[in-house]
Amino acid sequence: MHSQRRQDGDRRPRLTPAVADVRRAVRETLAALSPDSLVLVALSGGPDSLALAAATAFEAPRAGLRAGAVIVDHQLQDGSRAVADRAAEQARALGLDPVEVVRVDVAPSSAGGGPEAAARDARYAALDAAARRLTASAVLLGHTVDDQAETVLLGLARGSGAVSLSGMAVVNGVYRRPFLGLRRASTVQACRDQGLEPWSDPHNLDPAYTRVRVRDRVLPLLEAELDPGVVEALARTAELVRDDADALDRMVVEVAEELVDLDDGGCSVPAAWLVANPRALGSRLVRLVARVEFGLTLSREQTVEVLRLATDWHGQGAVHLRGVRVRRAGTRIVFTAAE
Amino acid sequence: MHSQRRQDGDRRPRLTPAVADVRRAVRETLAALSPDSLVLVALSGGPDSLALAAATAFEAPRAGLRAGAVIVDHQLQDGSRAVADRAAEQARALGLDPVEVVRVDVAPSSAGGGPEAAARDARYAALDAAARRLTASAVLLGHTVDDQAETVLLGLARGSGAVSLSGMAVVNGVYRRPFLGLRRASTVQACRDQGLEPWSDPHNLDPAYTRVRVRDRVLPLLEAELDPGVVEALARTAELVRDDADALDRMVVEVAEELVDLDDGGCSVPAAWLVANPRALGSRLVRLVARVEFGLTLSREQTVEVLRLATDWHGQGAVHLRGVRVRRAGTRIVFTAAE
Repeated sequence: MHSQRRQDGDRRPRLTPAVADVRRAVRETLAALSPDSLVLVALSGGPDSLALAAATAFEAPRAGLRAGAVIVDHQLQDGSRAVADRAAEQARALGLDPVEVVRVDVAPSSAGGGPEAAARDARYAALDAAARRLTASAVLLGHTVDDQAETVLLGLARGSGAVSLSGMAVVNGVYRRPFLGLRRASTVQACRDQGLEPWSDPHNLDPAYTRVRVRDRVLPLLEAELDPGVVEALARTAELVRDDADALDRMVVEVAEELVDLDDGGCSVPAAWLVANPRALGSRLVRLVARVEFGLTLSREQTVEVLRLATDWHGQGAVHLRGVRVRRAGTRIVFTAAE
Repeated sequence: MHSQRRQDGDRRPRLTPAVADVRRAVRETLAALSPDSLVLVALSGGPDSLALAAATAFEAPRAGLRAGAVIVDHQLQDGSRAVADRAAEQARALGLDPVEVVRVDVAPSSAGGGPEAAARDARYAALDAAARRLTASAVLLGHTVDDQAETVLLGLARGSGAVSLSGMAVVNGVYRRPFLGLRRASTVQACRDQGLEPWSDPHNLDPAYTRVRVRDRVLPLLEAELDPGVVEALARTAELVRDDADALDRMVVEVAEELVDLDDGGCSVPAAWLVANPRALGSRLVRLVARVEFGLTLSREQTVEVLRLATDWHGQGAVHLRGVRVRRAGTRIVFTAAE
């Protein structure tokens, strides 16, 4: 559905609870940024990012910052150019400057993950480039706690543990998500209270997308049958699980330098370390070596198989991964590129 | 619903795929036990534990083990005595020995958690006692991957991170769960294939229980809307998250001895350690001290508040917990019993 243009002046902005909430969230995020720098809002025109644009336009000058917006036109839907141009107009009307529309070509099939992943990759590449070109100190994203809960459920359905479960980070490089503690309903209300008319993406209503089914069918049922606070609970779980995973990732990166021996065509790690340490560390070291040295992402089964060369050693043969051979050699587990 | 007595001999046991699956699962579990020892099946008479009893009766002698059964009569439903006695008869008919029925009184309101938690506490206390009295090397529990997925979803709804999310362990002290890799449907089928008639607990059909709603409404919807493999995915996630949490728990217990200073009426930890280490470790150390020294289980908010005395120190006052006062004193965070 394509809604009408913003009707400027037909309603006076009011400082309602929803507007206060979104502004407070943005204010807390901006407080961490260097004075005088430029902050960019990634704007789609939907309620989350439009509320974010309005709150940033209001708060940034008060925090001594400049604020602009980048609108990515994925060129995947009819009329996407008009949607992007309208969002740019709204951003300018809010006082954001610079406001840029970036048109991207989404590669028809990116490396796995389907069209949604391809669009996401193209979007982040465009935002990265815009942040560099405009030397922005941060790019703000409008994801809410509802998006986080959806991400967690989608990750759970894949069953790949902390990696998929841990959801989106509040801060990740140049990106910041001020609204991860807010419900989507607050951003919708904040737009309404300020007379802003968000764009309604027809994709968000199409049950062919798993994320749409999660939003419209799964989360409401979980709220009804489990607990009305399940959205926040999922997000909280994601944060705690992410904390655990981050801590372990960090430890393994720290010990890896000491543990991993590099030589021609391969590298090795001590079997005894894999035996002495918990599986959560051992499997991370194995996966780190495969990823960093060979560009290979190991499945859980492959990782377990490699670990067995240390923890369940009974003279078994080499483990053959895609392009990599892993074998036991004395006290070490040796990774080499397969011929 | 109270089903009829087992009709012995009206069907010959057949080695069907389901029977082979449950037996294999039990065989792998029994392989880890000391020869000649006694293994007990915790039997309710339901399909999971009845299939477990039959498989254990078959496999234990072949593994050089003795096998018995314990039936806990919670005395919470009319006719519970008859249900327990019938399960005991089935166990004896399967060749298990000894077979004991233990009647317990469930405390009307145990320490939080409602009637389901109270019944569970009473059940495990009775099983613990039986295992000790009979000097059993293991008590087998019939939980399946479906139970695991339900537990994970119930934990997610509480949102307390890895603790609630990590589900049930395959091995926990004397308890072992051979069926955590099997679907419930396999145990139902295995009973049918062997002419065993399980008891159908009316509580398992009562939507007043959250777990029943998870089983009958939530999981089927997740399978339909997310992925047909969601039950296994939830269990797999639980295992990986548990691995991470276990590794961190272990590390913190190892460093605690070195870090925690005990003195009259309290104890302290170095603020610098809490600052230098990831939050996943810091929060565990704080919670460990509160639990071990003061018997206090801290909420997430309380833990964060205490951590701030180290990570966000700006001269703030003491944190007051139930019966414990935590304050900054020089380079240390000091816990004392509140007057």
